[in-house]
Amino acid sequence: MRIVGVDLGGTRIRVALLDENYTLLKRVEEPTRSWEGPAVTIPRILNLIAGIIDASDEPVQAIGISSPGPIDPVTGRIVSPPNLQGWVDIPLGRIAQERFPGIPTYIGNDANVAALAEVYNGAARGHTHAIYITVSTGIGGGIVIDGKLFTGAHGLAGELGHTVILVDGERVSTLEIEASGPGLARYVARRIREGAQSLVTEMVNGDLDAITGKTVGQAAQAGDPLALEAVTRSGRLIGYSIASLMHLFNPTIFVVGGGVSNLGELLFEPMRQAARAHVIDPAYYEQAAIVPAALGEDVAIIGAAALAIQELEAAGRN
Amino acid sequence: MRIVGVDLGGTRIRVALLDENYTLLKRVEEPTRSWEGPAVTIPRILNLIAGIIDASDEPVQAIGISSPGPIDPVTGRIVSPPNLQGWVDIPLGRIAQERFPGIPTYIGNDANVAALAEVYNGAARGHTHAIYITVSTGIGGGIVIDGKLFTGAHGLAGELGHTVILVDGERVSTLEIEASGPGLARYVARRIREGAQSLVTEMVNGDLDAITGKTVGQAAQAGDPLALEAVTRSGRLIGYSIASLMHLFNPTIFVVGGGVSNLGELLFEPMRQAARAHVIDPAYYEQAAIVPAALGEDVAIIGAAALAIQELEAAGRN
Repeated sequence: MRIVGVDLGGTRIRVALLDENYTLLKRVEEPTRSWEGPAVTIPRILNLIAGIIDASDEPVQAIGISSPGPIDPVTGRIVSPPNLQGWVDIPLGRIAQERFPGIPTYIGNDANVAALAEVYNGAARGHTHAIYITVSTGIGGGIVIDGKLFTGAHGLAGELGHTVILVDGERVSTLEIEASGPGLARYVARRIREGAQSLVTEMVNGDLDAITGKTVGQAAQAGDPLALEAVTRSGRLIGYSIASLMHLFNPTIFVVGGGVSNLGELLFEPMRQAARAHVIDPAYYEQAAIVPAALGEDVAIIGAAALAIQELEAAGRN
Repeated sequence: MRIVGVDLGGTRIRVALLDENYTLLKRVEEPTRSWEGPAVTIPRILNLIAGIIDASDEPVQAIGISSPGPIDPVTGRIVSPPNLQGWVDIPLGRIAQERFPGIPTYIGNDANVAALAEVYNGAARGHTHAIYITVSTGIGGGIVIDGKLFTGAHGLAGELGHTVILVDGERVSTLEIEASGPGLARYVARRIREGAQSLVTEMVNGDLDAITGKTVGQAAQAGDPLALEAVTRSGRLIGYSIASLMHLFNPTIFVVGGGVSNLGELLFEPMRQAARAHVIDPAYYEQAAIVPAALGEDVAIIGAAALAIQELEAAGRN
């Protein structure tokens, strides 16, 4: 079997040829240059796909595309992703389908297909009930139920970063706002403005608006107490959300990926502690592992291919 | 088709004969007297079922039982429900199956089967992606995905009352703790202790420990400002949770039942407002109705029968 996997990212476009074991047989890559707009970029994507199809040793059975969300799963329309500015209501799925009429084309949002990738070929291999959480500039997720990507009635499910985690009088906030990379940065900047000392102040030459999640992460790894406090807080908040998700979905594994997850145990330890402390029955925690993502930069390509294979199989059954 | 539906509640045991349209053809009822313990009560339940089977005009195809949770769905074991004291690890499903060997027996927790009842024969009729929320002494739920009850990897899913909704420094709390009937009572008692005036003080003759959710509800209906504040707060918190659930499950309907939901618009208006205000995209809110439960005291019997019919159909397909 030969599948084309496409990773449309804010920075890079990557297109690969994979077999049924998700082995990457060939791969090409170009910068996205999203400022050029979809009218320029889409033909480039299609040409990359065409090149990979031509170079394949066997007929290509399907094309899978990973795109920044939100995506309308029924029409394959990219709605208006924050990191692809100017891409408003682009029916990329249909456009690709028209260019390659003999090859079924499927499109999914990046966090959703990453969940599939981890289940089919990564840290959640063998699990049929899995939740993938990506913690970086935002917090996104993908939910796998009975081995299949769960997208809800209209394809918008799995957006676990937007769950309300904090209600304090008039202040209502979400997991993404509080615990993402920018959330780490905001927390540290606020505490420094309140008078806290931190290595971070020096790292950004006193420009507190220049603090990023990465700055905080580096300071935490250097042992800075305030940065460690911020990372612990993020880990705890993600852990509370994991506890909530355990009660809602009762999965057997949580896979946590994204840039912030590279902080490793600094993040995972408070995460696991908070999850364990907030389940009503130990079974919820004991039945679900909490592990780091296993797939690196190829996660979206593998996930796009996994989506295509899953949809091909579903079509075959019907 | 003839199905026996059993509602094992903390107060009453109700057993009914239903047809495939969930019409109740016959019904018997006894007090539970849970203090007598399962050794006395279970034979009474079995006799009620036997009586209904004997009285049926057609052979009974299946027995469905609604029980207070948690329940192990694989073994049909009632684990240790708070309102059936002394019922620890009771394999009611297996016991009933052994007594009625020719008739498949299925058991589910009361909130879960109530969700099925509302989907098959109540306010969510025709919906395949629905979430049922019951707000009374606790907050429970049932999640229907693709027309089927979703129970997760090990049957423990759908416990939406235990999701973390409030994190304020060291204070971490759940939807159930904050927004249930007892949550209403605690909030009002605390505010009165802080000096707030309320009709509730008079209603309980100054004994603030005697305040219940019902007291607060009655005071709210009488226009008491503090009680109204408490009900609005509960409605808002449930609304935030509904917003979270919209992002996670993207259903087409929420059905809200349970004693506290009888407060009607006093609860539903702040609930809808909070949900609408906290979705990242209007589609989440627009795609999902938020409605009161339609079924009254027969909800558990109908749900137990719906569970039995669903399981019969699933077994027929395999």
